[in-house]
Amino acid sequence: MYVILVYDIGEKRVGKMLKLCRKYLNWIQNSVFEGEISDVKLKELTIHAEKMMKEEDSLIIFSGRSEKWMDKQIIGKEKSSVDNFL
Amino acid sequence: MYVILVYDIGEKRVGKMLKLCRKYLNWIQNSVFEGEISDVKLKELTIHAEKMMKEEDSLIIFSGRSEKWMDKQIIGKEKSSVDNFL
Repeated sequence: MYVILVYDIGEKRVGKMLKLCRKYLNWIQNSVFEGEISDVKLKELTIHAEKMMKEEDSLIIFSGRSEKWMDKQIIGKEKSSVDNFL
Repeated sequence: MYVILVYDIGEKRVGKMLKLCRKYLNWIQNSVFEGEISDVKLKELTIHAEKMMKEEDSLIIFSGRSEKWMDKQIIGKEKSSVDNFL
């Protein structure tokens, strides 16, 4: 399935959350990720995320059967694909 | 059409961008908006956004024909709908 994931996390936990999400998805903006992922892997990701989140944190996951239903338009600075290898 | 909009904007311009996006879409997380919008209104929004953006800023718009293709899962703190009236 295709997902878009966005988080709003306390500064102290941002690094850990970033690292977790990058294990499963492509990083496309500061706190935004997208990619193809299986149900099982997504469940795994959300379980790990929930464990590190505090009360004021928020994580939204949009999911669809396929990327083809969504168009993506990027205005301004685009994350270099090199980021995927950092 | 249904869109998800996320921005990563310099602090000085965040207030202005937030105000702009809320005129067209529903605010669901710190820098995330969603909603039904016409092609014309979306064009209007992006033109205004581009005008206020600087080189390091980024705006991503995912758009699809209908909200029904995407499921939304919110983990943690959910923005109260009251926010829409602030």
